[in-house]
Amino acid sequence: MASPVSPPRGMRDFLPADKAKRERVLGVIRSVYSRHGFDEIETPVVEDFDRLHAGLGGDNEKLSFNVMKRGLSAADLAAAAGADAPDELADLGLRFDLTVPLARFYASHRAELPQVFRAVQIAPVWRAERPQKGRYRQFVQCDIDIIGEAGPLAEIELLTATLATLAELGLTGCRIRINDRRILFGMLAAFGFAADEHASVLITVDKLDKVGTEGVVAELRAKGATATAVDALEAYFASQPPASAPGDAVAAESTALTADAVASVLPDGVAPDAVAALAGIGSALEAAGVRGELVFDPFLVRGMGYYTGTIFEIEHPDFGFSLGGGGRYDGMIGRFLGEEVPACGFSIGFERIIDLVDDPAAADDRSLVLVHDKALAPETLLTLKQSLVADGYRVRLERRTKNLTALLERAEQAGFGGFAIVSRDHTPGEPLEIKRFGAE
Amino acid sequence: MASPVSPPRGMRDFLPADKAKRERVLGVIRSVYSRHGFDEIETPVVEDFDRLHAGLGGDNEKLSFNVMKRGLSAADLAAAAGADAPDELADLGLRFDLTVPLARFYASHRAELPQVFRAVQIAPVWRAERPQKGRYRQFVQCDIDIIGEAGPLAEIELLTATLATLAELGLTGCRIRINDRRILFGMLAAFGFAADEHASVLITVDKLDKVGTEGVVAELRAKGATATAVDALEAYFASQPPASAPGDAVAAESTALTADAVASVLPDGVAPDAVAALAGIGSALEAAGVRGELVFDPFLVRGMGYYTGTIFEIEHPDFGFSLGGGGRYDGMIGRFLGEEVPACGFSIGFERIIDLVDDPAAADDRSLVLVHDKALAPETLLTLKQSLVADGYRVRLERRTKNLTALLERAEQAGFGGFAIVSRDHTPGEPLEIKRFGAE
Repeated sequence: MASPVSPPRGMRDFLPADKAKRERVLGVIRSVYSRHGFDEIETPVVEDFDRLHAGLGGDNEKLSFNVMKRGLSAADLAAAAGADAPDELADLGLRFDLTVPLARFYASHRAELPQVFRAVQIAPVWRAERPQKGRYRQFVQCDIDIIGEAGPLAEIELLTATLATLAELGLTGCRIRINDRRILFGMLAAFGFAADEHASVLITVDKLDKVGTEGVVAELRAKGATATAVDALEAYFASQPPASAPGDAVAAESTALTADAVASVLPDGVAPDAVAALAGIGSALEAAGVRGELVFDPFLVRGMGYYTGTIFEIEHPDFGFSLGGGGRYDGMIGRFLGEEVPACGFSIGFERIIDLVDDPAAADDRSLVLVHDKALAPETLLTLKQSLVADGYRVRLERRTKNLTALLERAEQAGFGGFAIVSRDHTPGEPLEIKRFGAE
Repeated sequence: MASPVSPPRGMRDFLPADKAKRERVLGVIRSVYSRHGFDEIETPVVEDFDRLHAGLGGDNEKLSFNVMKRGLSAADLAAAAGADAPDELADLGLRFDLTVPLARFYASHRAELPQVFRAVQIAPVWRAERPQKGRYRQFVQCDIDIIGEAGPLAEIELLTATLATLAELGLTGCRIRINDRRILFGMLAAFGFAADEHASVLITVDKLDKVGTEGVVAELRAKGATATAVDALEAYFASQPPASAPGDAVAAESTALTADAVASVLPDGVAPDAVAALAGIGSALEAAGVRGELVFDPFLVRGMGYYTGTIFEIEHPDFGFSLGGGGRYDGMIGRFLGEEVPACGFSIGFERIIDLVDDPAAADDRSLVLVHDKALAPETLLTLKQSLVADGYRVRLERRTKNLTALLERAEQAGFGGFAIVSRDHTPGEPLEIKRFGAE
């Protein structure tokens, strides 16, 4: 059972060491995104209920935490009870992603923003998911989005900035799996699936990394998908084993992001515009010497229904999960504006990478613990502390305890670089002996 | 009427320039507090409903936004309707301050924290107040607290760190008004108010800066407070005009923070321990050369009922409002632990000071806008951008528009230091001509 002083279910407190690491890693992310020309914005953590439930958030809409209307009366409650409509009691909700708020923000402030707007949002979101290891009900998302750029320059800048950020965090050698929703739909049509089957078929294909090609084929047959189309898909799987099958996350044979290589693994004539766009992204990143392998994955689906073009995910060969992903969603930003606005975004999985990266800050040499006798006058102590702070030190006062060794060990673990002991007969102006931890 | 794309009522979006300024100012605050030995922590934005309504939050409890229970049934609603109890439908709430979460955090993690724990919390809180100028329903608080230190060293470190932070933000010459709740109660007793009148009398005295001494006396008489005590208070006001009367926020004659000066303005024998503690704070700050005037204000009340000792507020002579305040609240942190733990805190009014301070970052020389022809190949552009980023530039791509002057003006306003124009016939490797804004 949760202790009565635990944080709410599925949420976390961050103690000093964790908080410091998170802030330093977020600082690196902010800094690289800023150098790449992205601007940070912020929106309130809550949005109006109706905006969160306008159909832009997919399945996440069901996971939103609802904030109650103020001053509900007994009559309101009785009406809601009669209609079995608890949602009528809420007028706000905690955001479940940063994309719906971005669309609302852009519609509200478009006139004040550059024609091509490069946004960074680094902020928490909330989802009422079943708490489990690695899944939290409050977690930080790091999103970059480019709004107003229809061409592949958006994808190119997003991928470049993301790879640079991961490299700065020590995650070099990443691999980008990339696809285009138009290629997915073109393939399904080429295999013979009817247009009204596509959404359902994609839900099954999206399970490829969990159930493998046989599992996908079996589920499609069980669903009653067009039999000849399933046969065609099965034959395709046999000739082109997908890179994303289980146990094969980094396939030996992967498809490079060139027009010829991509076309060679696709049925004839599938989505030539999308193939050309992918090849353009590949050649631009290569020409600019962006580090990171680019791999075409014709079965990369990504769940969100709002994607309209390129979709991508970043993996690292050392880890069996995606470090982030994104794609183009041209139809969505304009929903609040009533016109189509091109948009493309990328989200780093912050809560995953924070556990993978080393803390960018080592123990700080210019920090020390002043261990002082309880009898020392506060003004003597404060004068000492002030002069050390003025010299650029980070200074923590610690009253001397019986177990000095334990005290110093804790200080070293907390990242302090050294210590000094101030005795009760310390006279103002007397020089301090500063000892570095680890120095012998 | 609010536009359908506005942020929720009483809340704000932050555009890039505002967000950047806020983050830079928060960065300064974080940095100074860290140098002074405080550790940043973070708690979830929501707390369990019962914890937010345990009586620790005073009037703010009524202003909390309630988060609805998940999966409410018609029966739940009907029960709540019958009892006219909307609160039974909520199991979480958005925090209205950072003190209740700190108490919960400390109780949960005490074993992992230093014996004297110096906490920084910089985070938003939510209050369902009537929106008005300068009052928001989501706003950032910057709190520092010292838990586990019963002596005046806590007050001394808090005041020193706060004054250093304000000075680093350019707010030098601040004035600290300081008092002690024990002095307040001692004075009320000396005037002859009965103990059970004290809380009510303090509510009136707290209006001194709005209604003046005459207003306070009149309200006390109207309330039916002990008449002889009101007479004694009125006589005291006549002999010691309070510094905090209207139009007199920075009084010419103020009381220095020495034992003699404080005792000289108090009825005989009032709270000698508190007077000695205040004098100790004054002498320590003076000995250490901390800048900032310290003034004893026997009628400083501060609203929160949980204060038990020292209370203080910081003002700046140029502004007619407090920049922050705090005090000692020894009874509260231990509420979740079941034992008394000494605690003292200080909160900077971030939403007030953000409008007062200059943006610490001037236009950045190492940033530029690359104005490019639409026909330029993405790889050429990306290669250019990559080499500039590698050289330490912050780089924003801007497609050339007909009105180049307007484009460059916007870039300069956005803080970029210069620009370069890349024509459609730019060849890779060709050197760029970087022009600085403002250079002629």
